[in-house]
Amino acid sequence: MKLHWSPRSPYVRKVLIAAHEMGLGSRLDCVRTTVSPFAPAEDLWDDNPLNKLPTLVLDDGTAIYDNRVICEHLDTLHDGPRLFPQGGRERLIALRNQALGDGLLDVLMMRLIERLRPEERRSPEIVVSNERKTAAALDRLESDVALLTTRPYDIGHVAIGTALGYVDFRFADDGWRDRRPKLAAWHAGFDARPAVCACPVRDDS
Amino acid sequence: MKLHWSPRSPYVRKVLIAAHEMGLGSRLDCVRTTVSPFAPAEDLWDDNPLNKLPTLVLDDGTAIYDNRVICEHLDTLHDGPRLFPQGGRERLIALRNQALGDGLLDVLMMRLIERLRPEERRSPEIVVSNERKTAAALDRLESDVALLTTRPYDIGHVAIGTALGYVDFRFADDGWRDRRPKLAAWHAGFDARPAVCACPVRDDS
Repeated sequence: MKLHWSPRSPYVRKVLIAAHEMGLGSRLDCVRTTVSPFAPAEDLWDDNPLNKLPTLVLDDGTAIYDNRVICEHLDTLHDGPRLFPQGGRERLIALRNQALGDGLLDVLMMRLIERLRPEERRSPEIVVSNERKTAAALDRLESDVALLTTRPYDIGHVAIGTALGYVDFRFADDGWRDRRPKLAAWHAGFDARPAVCACPVRDDS
Repeated sequence: MKLHWSPRSPYVRKVLIAAHEMGLGSRLDCVRTTVSPFAPAEDLWDDNPLNKLPTLVLDDGTAIYDNRVICEHLDTLHDGPRLFPQGGRERLIALRNQALGDGLLDVLMMRLIERLRPEERRSPEIVVSNERKTAAALDRLESDVALLTTRPYDIGHVAIGTALGYVDFRFADDGWRDRRPKLAAWHAGFDARPAVCACPVRDDS
């Protein structure tokens, strides 16, 4: 399977971490694709008209996206413990937690895009709004950390751990650990998982 | 169930259309919540730290989001035909089509936010990039219209139909039907469904 890949995309990293948790890392043939909100990747249009990473091309040529759809599909290709619970409240909370992690990533991405604009084209209201959302999401994760620490590891953990790694990568100045010791402790454990160690955050190539 | 609602949010409209398809429209108690990318809704933080619509509060107080998670959960609460196929290629294509519709909505939302900025704070590159993505998504839907017309109605149809309705609502000047007669014909059928008629696009209240 061909994965359109970039070393800096957190959505790609989420898929890679999930694939490694499932023992499928070696099944992905990663091809470097460079996208930016300011300039689409010309070689991505055929596989994804939204020009987004990640995009996975199956062996029969079917292209699938977005990151959630890819993760759920990969979860059908292995015999280990499932990252997507099959149903009931377990699945509902896993998917809601995934949406929290993915949504935090979306907020961080909007912050990054705002920062990449020339200063005179930034919107102070959007900056403040997204900073508040970041803090609110992290505060909620701190107060509800039992949702992470007392539940079997699932796609929600992957999404939230990936999002926290992206705060470190792009917004280290937030100092998010300062008032959130329980979440910081959980994230240290996440970062030590073999599947996560296999997918380091990189700023190169 | 309490649904944080706005008449202009296309993500909310997608949930409402899905709920009506499932016969669950009357189960949703819609409460008006006003969000904007420039100013969060103060009464939404408790239920959703990302301050996004839609957010659904279940009868036991559990708040769930985002729109995909809400739709999938609602689909477990009725006995009619499922909008989320249970597995296999049917499910994969339904979820990929949903991601295309949702992703198109995300692009349209970025275009709208850019337009709402003061003119001197807009980014011409972002405007052009998102216009290209809109056109590419619509062109793909025209060329692959059989994915809509030959498959059983599912959540992908709901997402794509909702996104096309939002092009009409916010970007009528795109004239998207002009070179896409097959997609336009499909959308006319979508718009005539009782569940869609029950959820008109509104610009008031």
